[in-house]
Amino acid sequence: MTSKATGAVLVLGGARSGKSAFAEDLVAESGLERHYIATGRAWDDEMRERIAAHRTQRGEGWTTHEEPLDLVGRLAEIDAPGCVVLVDCLTLWVTNLMLDERDIPVEFARLVDLLSCLEARVVFVSNEVGLGIVPENRMARDFRDHAGRLHQSVAARCVEVYFIAAGLPLKMKG
Amino acid sequence: MTSKATGAVLVLGGARSGKSAFAEDLVAESGLERHYIATGRAWDDEMRERIAAHRTQRGEGWTTHEEPLDLVGRLAEIDAPGCVVLVDCLTLWVTNLMLDERDIPVEFARLVDLLSCLEARVVFVSNEVGLGIVPENRMARDFRDHAGRLHQSVAARCVEVYFIAAGLPLKMKG
Amino acid sequence: MTSKATGAVLVLGGARSGKSAFAEDLVAESGLERHYIATGRAWDDEMRERIAAHRTQRGEGWTTHEEPLDLVGRLAEIDAPGCVVLVDCLTLWVTNLMLDERDIPVEFARLVDLLSCLEARVVFVSNEVGLGIVPENRMARDFRDHAGRLHQSVAARCVEVYFIAAGLPLKMKG
Repeated sequence: MTSKATGAVLVLGGARSGKSAFAEDLVAESGLERHYIATGRAWDDEMRERIAAHRTQRGEGWTTHEEPLDLVGRLAEIDAPGCVVLVDCLTLWVTNLMLDERDIPVEFARLVDLLSCLEARVVFVSNEVGLGIVPENRMARDFRDHAGRLHQSVAARCVEVYFIAAGLPLKMKG
Repeated sequence: MTSKATGAVLVLGGARSGKSAFAEDLVAESGLERHYIATGRAWDDEMRERIAAHRTQRGEGWTTHEEPLDLVGRLAEIDAPGCVVLVDCLTLWVTNLMLDERDIPVEFARLVDLLSCLEARVVFVSNEVGLGIVPENRMARDFRDHAGRLHQSVAARCVEVYFIAAGLPLKMKG
Repeated sequence: MTSKATGAVLVLGGARSGKSAFAEDLVAESGLERHYIATGRAWDDEMRERIAAHRTQRGEGWTTHEEPLDLVGRLAEIDAPGCVVLVDCLTLWVTNLMLDERDIPVEFARLVDLLSCLEARVVFVSNEVGLGIVPENRMARDFRDHAGRLHQSVAARCVEVYFIAAGLPLKMKG
């Protein structure tokens, strides 16, 4: 991560690509006060296992916030110089917004607006989901459209963007 | 885009990756006479919306051609020095060829042959669709096989190839 | 490929991305004694066609081994200085292990352990499958989790890692 204390970073990758571990390393190197926003909801055993595994992997030294919907409000609340916030992940946030029938463009605009005035450093983790066959159901197509648009907007305002595959980072910006 | 006035460019990316916008910027920078070949067919409202959104995004100054099947014939017809043709996109063309039961290898060979003798600059947009789980139905598997083979053949004859994610280009060739 | 005679290489890519052809070129350039381990099982006509097409593409000069399950044992058996082994592909091996209800973490650990003591050069081909929408069925989700974890472990021990799209290599490590 650059020496700039502020600015957002986007870590994009596929399932089990090592994107969370890479993002956690970025955060650990920063030496800043660490916050973790988990957007995932533990709605079944599989999800509970995944969340628990992530928590174990991260280890000590984090303040953890569970925030499935009001990501923007929570980020604004935590925001302070000397802080770093890891948001894991944007795609689960999009899923939650859709299930809760929120106004997606409004939520995305709020996030993008916040990005330009944050004092904390923020590292966003997100799943790239648009590189397979067009999904048969409309909701999945809408989801990947939303995710793709969000990635473009966030990436445009980030100081660094990484694409992760097989645990290896490819720097796309910064 | 390089200063070479001729030669083909391939812009590959996922759904909502920003590949069309990137390709349109390449074309705008060229200062050449702009043609647009839309291969998509407006067979339902969702598709009509996507086509209309693309048209609005592009703005003025384009000659638009709707050509779902005879991409090669249309390219040959438009071809002239001082022109740039944006083809959006190859994957929809493949879909149309399959639905119309055309001879895919013959069509691909015709396109590849044309590429070596074009006087216009051509920018192809296409979806990378082979990075998800193997699809359960045979037609989807055939589709991604066709798309993958076409991308390889076209890329081999392009002067520049880009992979787009989150609106950011990764230069793979050129 | 670097001039190092030993060490493993991972060639990752989507369906029909040209990853096998790229891996075969790496092997051919090495000038070493060529072995090919096919992990695919010809369980239907479609698979038989794919296997036959690969065999034709490779041409002469290879010792071919069909090994759907005991990849580690076979690699250890072939291993010798002056050899190069192309394994095509890891994802089919994972599929076979799952269908045969083997202990996946144990098998992965055996492979990773072997990598650190091989005398032959090994080139692994594998499908990146984690960049689409989350699959609806549990087995497919487990499969892409296994594949993703294996890619991370193998990539960490490889001297070179490539990501292939449209027949073009992107060097991610080495």
